[in-house]
Amino acid sequence: MKIGVIGGGQLGRMLALAGTPLGMDFAFLDPAPDACAAALGEHIRADYGDQDHLRQLADEVDLVTFEFESVPAETVAFLSRFVPVYPSAEALRIARDRWFEKSMFKDLGIPTPAFADIQSQADLDAAVAAIGLPAVLKTRTLGYDGKGQKVLRSAADAADAFAELGSVPCLLEGFVPFTGEVSLIAVRARDGETRFYPLVHNTHESGILRLSVASDAHPLQALAEDYAGRVLDQLQYVGVLAFEFFEVDGGLKANEIAPRVHNSGHWTIEGARCSQFENHLRAVAGLPLGATTRRGETAMLNFIGTVPPVEKVVALADCHLHHYGKAFKDGRKVGHATLLCADRATLDQRIADVQALIDA
Amino acid sequence: MKIGVIGGGQLGRMLALAGTPLGMDFAFLDPAPDACAAALGEHIRADYGDQDHLRQLADEVDLVTFEFESVPAETVAFLSRFVPVYPSAEALRIARDRWFEKSMFKDLGIPTPAFADIQSQADLDAAVAAIGLPAVLKTRTLGYDGKGQKVLRSAADAADAFAELGSVPCLLEGFVPFTGEVSLIAVRARDGETRFYPLVHNTHESGILRLSVASDAHPLQALAEDYAGRVLDQLQYVGVLAFEFFEVDGGLKANEIAPRVHNSGHWTIEGARCSQFENHLRAVAGLPLGATTRRGETAMLNFIGTVPPVEKVVALADCHLHHYGKAFKDGRKVGHATLLCADRATLDQRIADVQALIDA
Repeated sequence: MKIGVIGGGQLGRMLALAGTPLGMDFAFLDPAPDACAAALGEHIRADYGDQDHLRQLADEVDLVTFEFESVPAETVAFLSRFVPVYPSAEALRIARDRWFEKSMFKDLGIPTPAFADIQSQADLDAAVAAIGLPAVLKTRTLGYDGKGQKVLRSAADAADAFAELGSVPCLLEGFVPFTGEVSLIAVRARDGETRFYPLVHNTHESGILRLSVASDAHPLQALAEDYAGRVLDQLQYVGVLAFEFFEVDGGLKANEIAPRVHNSGHWTIEGARCSQFENHLRAVAGLPLGATTRRGETAMLNFIGTVPPVEKVVALADCHLHHYGKAFKDGRKVGHATLLCADRATLDQRIADVQALIDA
Repeated sequence: MKIGVIGGGQLGRMLALAGTPLGMDFAFLDPAPDACAAALGEHIRADYGDQDHLRQLADEVDLVTFEFESVPAETVAFLSRFVPVYPSAEALRIARDRWFEKSMFKDLGIPTPAFADIQSQADLDAAVAAIGLPAVLKTRTLGYDGKGQKVLRSAADAADAFAELGSVPCLLEGFVPFTGEVSLIAVRARDGETRFYPLVHNTHESGILRLSVASDAHPLQALAEDYAGRVLDQLQYVGVLAFEFFEVDGGLKANEIAPRVHNSGHWTIEGARCSQFENHLRAVAGLPLGATTRRGETAMLNFIGTVPPVEKVVALADCHLHHYGKAFKDGRKVGHATLLCADRATLDQRIADVQALIDA
């Protein structure tokens, strides 16, 4: 079976590492000449709107999937005429746009921060009055890793904020006094079976994920699965979906979904019986899903900007290096380490060991 | 770092799957147009004696390693002029030839079956008289998976055996009434550090490995490590070396070594903290070695000739599919399953589950 992937970054690379042992071949469509997944499959170097090359991809593969959600709707619609596409165009349409996404949460009875659609500065002024400050203004589409958003703490912050974000459609979200950020990696098969990984505690820095720790019997696991299950069924979703929540007052408020394998699920490569990458491929390929249980106490730390010296990372006990083979650049995710330990005290020590290398 | 591999079969493929997350790139030199490692790196399609292409490989990579031992000595010598080669030409020279190999064991005080060098039918007749029957006649080089050998049970079997194996240099080995076959996967770093995986119990069928089960605190572990350590140090070996033994009268007799990652070590991909593939790459790249301990009760079953339906293999609990992406053909190793379980009773059940798929 040959899998087409839109995007050839590290998520595509890790999909190929998981799928090759299942006998799958890969083709990546990505305009970047140095797409890091290209080492593991065919690289069709073309823009995402290039119909000739999209057609070439569709003709070569058995199905198409995505490693990022901001694929143009036209691309998905075009591909869908020739080849199965998972997740569906509708799932991508919703997940790509914060207004559609939050509106769906509301329709499904999933709590969210207060939110409002912002098409102008006048809309923003009205929404600030209704929701109050602090609040966060986010572009409806194309935001990631804290890009395309602005925290509004005062009327002065809000004054020109719409123009500052490019005068594009935005969403205003009420600030949530959360006690933690957690994410749930979920997977739904073609036949509707769903499975969920243990909730992950996430720590961000400057809007970028730094640390994910898989929980053990988290008291909010069942609630998170209930919410995620509503979204999966609503979208008749196929593949892995990541659901980010704020922990608020002992409950959950939905932040956002990502219709793909997700950074907060990278610990599953060694930390779970079947990784998010393999389970995504199993789902889209119509294979039975794999076990989502932890193998032990497990966590993931991102390497941002640079990977510490390889000989130092691999010298750490219980540590697995994942180097993406990308050029180093400030703020860029260039690798991660996963940790798998027998007990929590050891895990905490190992997290400190990796952090020390990052800080060195 | 870019690694050159002589040979582009499944061992090369699994080396690339292990090395890519370490940030390594791969080039495989293999004459076969359908070399299955080619999906994961550059494929230099050339004969092993093609000096132009060997030079191209040497120029492109940081070091060269091997996925099979019957590489011509001239190839190794030529490459060594331009690029570091691990394991060394000397290690390959010994391991490739059963006479050199057995003579080294003898010199190092490692017990072996009785053996004799056979250059003619007259040599064979004399050796049969000295060693007795039954015995096994094996070509000194190029044998694998039971090929290039003949069991001699009677004088009639021995009569024309030398001609039957092609009148090439052979070794006669006394038949050993063994109670089991075990192998030790060992790894030696550039700085001389050695590590050993748990002894593996192997079951063969028609000369081909079918099942490997990693042992727990095997009573012969220390003895096997002692023997393997002598060979590693004698050869100043760098990389993974597999050592096959017969269990005889509560002791070990050396059968053969393979100067490479080995089929009886495939369980280490999921079953050990650091796989044989990653440890081989760490060793040749001058990185610290990884932990060789088991993660649980673990085993490997080969898929020979054909891989059972993928949807059935992945549906089995505790089972990991490794499909080599090769054309199916009788007697050919085309994949394997590794099992990782919490207890031995479960492992035995899972082995039966996989065996049932193989037999279906």
